[in-house]
Amino acid sequence: MDKSIKSFGSRDKLQKLQNKDSLFLCVIATTLTSRIPGITGAGASPELTDYTPAADVELILHGKPQCLPEIPQTVVGGEAAPTPAVITKAALEMAGIPFLVVDAGSAIKPSIPYVNINHNRGGNIETGAAVLNPMEIFNKGKMLGKTLSKLTDHLIIGESTPAGTTTALGVLEALGYDAWGKVSGSTPENPHTLKRQTVENGLKAAGLANDLPLDPFQAVGAVGDPMIPAVAGITAGSTVPVTLAGGTQMTAVCAFLKEAVEGFSFEDVSIATTIFVATDETADINYIAQQIAPINIYAVDPGFEKSENLGLQKYTQGVVKEGAGAGGAMLAAQLQGISIDDIRAKTEDLCREIF
Amino acid sequence: MDKSIKSFGSRDKLQKLQNKDSLFLCVIATTLTSRIPGITGAGASPELTDYTPAADVELILHGKPQCLPEIPQTVVGGEAAPTPAVITKAALEMAGIPFLVVDAGSAIKPSIPYVNINHNRGGNIETGAAVLNPMEIFNKGKMLGKTLSKLTDHLIIGESTPAGTTTALGVLEALGYDAWGKVSGSTPENPHTLKRQTVENGLKAAGLANDLPLDPFQAVGAVGDPMIPAVAGITAGSTVPVTLAGGTQMTAVCAFLKEAVEGFSFEDVSIATTIFVATDETADINYIAQQIAPINIYAVDPGFEKSENLGLQKYTQGVVKEGAGAGGAMLAAQLQGISIDDIRAKTEDLCREIF
Repeated sequence: MDKSIKSFGSRDKLQKLQNKDSLFLCVIATTLTSRIPGITGAGASPELTDYTPAADVELILHGKPQCLPEIPQTVVGGEAAPTPAVITKAALEMAGIPFLVVDAGSAIKPSIPYVNINHNRGGNIETGAAVLNPMEIFNKGKMLGKTLSKLTDHLIIGESTPAGTTTALGVLEALGYDAWGKVSGSTPENPHTLKRQTVENGLKAAGLANDLPLDPFQAVGAVGDPMIPAVAGITAGSTVPVTLAGGTQMTAVCAFLKEAVEGFSFEDVSIATTIFVATDETADINYIAQQIAPINIYAVDPGFEKSENLGLQKYTQGVVKEGAGAGGAMLAAQLQGISIDDIRAKTEDLCREIF
Repeated sequence: MDKSIKSFGSRDKLQKLQNKDSLFLCVIATTLTSRIPGITGAGASPELTDYTPAADVELILHGKPQCLPEIPQTVVGGEAAPTPAVITKAALEMAGIPFLVVDAGSAIKPSIPYVNINHNRGGNIETGAAVLNPMEIFNKGKMLGKTLSKLTDHLIIGESTPAGTTTALGVLEALGYDAWGKVSGSTPENPHTLKRQTVENGLKAAGLANDLPLDPFQAVGAVGDPMIPAVAGITAGSTVPVTLAGGTQMTAVCAFLKEAVEGFSFEDVSIATTIFVATDETADINYIAQQIAPINIYAVDPGFEKSENLGLQKYTQGVVKEGAGAGGAMLAAQLQGISIDDIRAKTEDLCREIF
């Protein structure tokens, strides 16, 4: 296995997936939580975060967004880093991995075919009313996972959910985990105080602050986002190994799964992310995951410090870090024999073409 | 190959598909054309035809409709025959064939995961404004076909579109084919005069009656339905063999494909339907198809005359005939080694359970 993959857990599972057919899903969702100023970098302005998931998946399939005139970028201090969807596109195209979009509730719908499992976006978790129908989303996710796992040997599930680390924090806290100050984020200055306040306000507004830990559906309903029960459902329904392609948000999916499915086993479920999440000094994905179960976590290092692209270099300074399943897409491509240097070179080529 | 399959064309192609992985899609759409009294039997009343496609696919996945309190039945002279979705369900379940729903524009959305390629239903073709965005639907279909054909060896595409033979007639006529009195229908008394009047009114209303043959997108836009460009697009995008699972409606898809894709080859495209369509004395699927190209047509006979179920017996008297890809689903199950007698027995079991 490539040295660019850092493994927290067993490498045997990875070897079993080498050269197997895989299918990459990107589950998209938006919430009004991402409109809170300063909470996320996933969009040029709080309002534009509504467009980021649709623009990401349009970029992956079409080479450019259809719903926006501009490419989603994370802007920090006036300098821009490209959306991680570029990395996902590079990796999947090189490996010939099929790509399917699942709408868990995005305000803006992408101009490409997508699987609907929920129409409405999530609310602002500060209101304590985040997701109206988490059970329905989970059940439809299960049906989809059951069907799609008949078509492949390995499901890789990425996500694009602006402010998703805050809603993940909400679910983790609501389920009784110690996650304050441990979730990652898309900016170098991780706004932990704002995230914590937002979650605490939400639990209070829902009248549930003193009832922790909550039932998982109640947790998502109050302070979660629609992506979490969707990805959990697809995973629960799958009969093939699942790689959750994301950072600390995917620990919330795992925590949800542990409570929602009696006796759920993480034997065939792993998390794959980028080295930027795994080494994020403002967060601790392993600390959260260990509280849930002995989940295998893989972190891929695309070596962006070697890149001449200034936007990609920003990733090494804590900007963006992960999204649209970039870490899992790189891992999946490596499982098909593509080298990390080739993925980086292709990502640079795409950046030149697109930006 | 089973004697229950009647073949118009080469059987070699069928043999190549034996025991290959297949994926069954059901493309759903509704139009205001189905509200014209007497034009279709696919619903207990003209208004309820809006629900038939969603109810059909819910029945296949859940065992009962979610959007309606009752199972869709075709009612003729006070007697009811069950929706062909029961046959589709029996065949796919026995063969373990994965089932995915594609919404090409259904007024009522099913309560199951479905792939969106178009949101809005079609209009009444009498207005000459049937489908606003046939090109967009076709292009999204192509993208979907390209992706899904990476996941299987054989795509089978069924449809559920009430009044779909009338909109198929519209497209065939608009493209210059001789199809008057040749399309099939869901009732024994095929209302050819009403269908023809409806199409002629539509072409006049669109101001195109004297401009035939039309461009295929113009034809669907004026007097077609959203299913036709959707199924055509998926077929055009596929890199694996496609079986169009339906009756005379699928000849309209073929006619559309021939004009929309320069040099389109029907080498890897077949039509599979039921014996009730193939032997329909009020229609002639072969006569229409031969005008388009040498398309292989397979017709499956489920032997319902041997059934003790009175509803299924009605099929042998010209009620229902086909729908939800029933003929293609039976063929696909037979390709996996399931016998037609077992499919009939399972269909009878499901009828007992469901009705």
